[in-house]
Amino acid sequence: MNFSTLIATKASRVVYAAKGRAIAEFGLRRAQGDGHLEATRATYIGGCASTSNVMAGKKLGIPVSGTMAHSFVTSFDHEIDSYRAYADAFPNRCFLLIDTYNSIEGAKKAVIVGKELEKKGERLLGVRLDSGDLALLSKEVRIILDGAGLDYVKIVASGDLNEWKIEELMKKGARIDMFGVGTELITGRPTPALDGIYKLSDVMERGRHVPKMKLSEETVKATLPGKKRVWRFSGDGMFKKDIISLEDEHIDNANPLLELVVKNGKIACKRPSLDKIRQMAADNFSNLPDKYKTLDDAPVYPVEFSPGLVALREKIVERIRKEEIQA
Amino acid sequence: MNFSTLIATKASRVVYAAKGRAIAEFGLRRAQGDGHLEATRATYIGGCASTSNVMAGKKLGIPVSGTMAHSFVTSFDHEIDSYRAYADAFPNRCFLLIDTYNSIEGAKKAVIVGKELEKKGERLLGVRLDSGDLALLSKEVRIILDGAGLDYVKIVASGDLNEWKIEELMKKGARIDMFGVGTELITGRPTPALDGIYKLSDVMERGRHVPKMKLSEETVKATLPGKKRVWRFSGDGMFKKDIISLEDEHIDNANPLLELVVKNGKIACKRPSLDKIRQMAADNFSNLPDKYKTLDDAPVYPVEFSPGLVALREKIVERIRKEEIQA
Repeated sequence: MNFSTLIATKASRVVYAAKGRAIAEFGLRRAQGDGHLEATRATYIGGCASTSNVMAGKKLGIPVSGTMAHSFVTSFDHEIDSYRAYADAFPNRCFLLIDTYNSIEGAKKAVIVGKELEKKGERLLGVRLDSGDLALLSKEVRIILDGAGLDYVKIVASGDLNEWKIEELMKKGARIDMFGVGTELITGRPTPALDGIYKLSDVMERGRHVPKMKLSEETVKATLPGKKRVWRFSGDGMFKKDIISLEDEHIDNANPLLELVVKNGKIACKRPSLDKIRQMAADNFSNLPDKYKTLDDAPVYPVEFSPGLVALREKIVERIRKEEIQA
Repeated sequence: MNFSTLIATKASRVVYAAKGRAIAEFGLRRAQGDGHLEATRATYIGGCASTSNVMAGKKLGIPVSGTMAHSFVTSFDHEIDSYRAYADAFPNRCFLLIDTYNSIEGAKKAVIVGKELEKKGERLLGVRLDSGDLALLSKEVRIILDGAGLDYVKIVASGDLNEWKIEELMKKGARIDMFGVGTELITGRPTPALDGIYKLSDVMERGRHVPKMKLSEETVKATLPGKKRVWRFSGDGMFKKDIISLEDEHIDNANPLLELVVKNGKIACKRPSLDKIRQMAADNFSNLPDKYKTLDDAPVYPVEFSPGLVALREKIVERIRKEEIQA
């Protein structure tokens, strides 16, 4: 749950930075071992449009997309030979990688092959930039394509991209229609771990609930005792704040968020489809006020504790101090 | 290979920082999905002594170690009850977690249980600190243990540790005998990806080798053409520098490093055991001069290109410029 939440959050940031342009997940080769399937699933939940991870396509039904590799281009005597071979193999879904030798010259050769495809009644779908000044190159390549009447050809950009670089490219007016994002997306770089933990909060002893908590040497590591509920306040359709309460408290004018998913060690709910999970993530994100949607230094969404929870925590801290520390 | 190399390198840094104290890998809960087995294997190759990943113990034969969880302590009415229950269950391999409520008070209770174990002819193996000022607490706990005649009891420390924090603890004279390292070790935080790539360097065409290279828009992304060998210079048993040459060049006074591992798509070598790989990593590391062994700002180990490789690269760049760019 830690890892999926981390990567879905990362994907959501990348998708948001791209302001509507599609994000293709290209990260398989940098996945942390066999975690790739879980990672790709999370990027799709976070809003990515497709993946280059073919196994994720097969096993999870996530749309698959990809373009040619540099090794495909270099395996031919000439770059344009590789473009023609690719266009022959994929006439109706042809994306050409144009930076193997020089992106501008690659774009000119892509125009030649695009025109050849037109004569066959097909259309070149796009070209991909993978290095260099992507903002500048995308504008120059756009001019080359448009000048040849290929204004329908999309420009894809990739190459160590992340949410900050995409935001910067958008600010510079880059003419990029779609981003391929790999390493950063699939590992969460520079934050590859979400420090979620499980701690005991309650045990049944002789038929009654006994709240439990850990104090530790650091306030941040102290836990909240007792069985709980989580409540969300909304206004004008937007989320305002959450309150964590004890199970027997009722918070007025708020919606309870928790649903039973496991009971006595068994799954106790209907498992939603991947697309339903993805839609729920998108809906929730759209209900989050814009002030929380900045890549850096966003304010913290308010989560408060109910009076009952605060009182219980104080009572238990008091008991622990007396029985475990000052005894 | 990227991921295993990354994590083994991280482990090697952590092990080196601990100056001979054992590192136990505790990272399973933060592993990136199903990549945990590959990650744990790499931490063992990098020099970790044991893992809390029981499946890695079962499948790979890596020594397993672990201590009690906070939830075990809090599940009892009193901390000392949990210690006694644990000592009953594991009388000859008992490590007690002492920071659930207060580490100093936990240490005093551990002394009581340690003395009870002595009466049964057993010995408490250790106590674990997991929060707070580990340098200070370890010194205070050492005094408590030694004062009670339990100088044989080890102190284990954990809690978001990494190579920098361990180096700092060692400098402060912390009385820690063993470190448990989890999140940072298993994900490589803050560097969760090693950007290794494969690119085409040579193809057979009509029975002869044709060297290939990628130029791209960035010098750092340009590749080296042709089939190659790697040579290492040593002196007084220490590594001095490496040279990458073409396959048909011979470099005097250096040892060739490459071995054939795959031929025609099949594994063509005897696969070494995990312990042999681990020993080889340790031997190689010990042959690396100390100046490269600092956690930050270490000089770059010199890797040079042979005259033949430089000449071939220039020739191919020239050809690409002429045929692909200026054409």
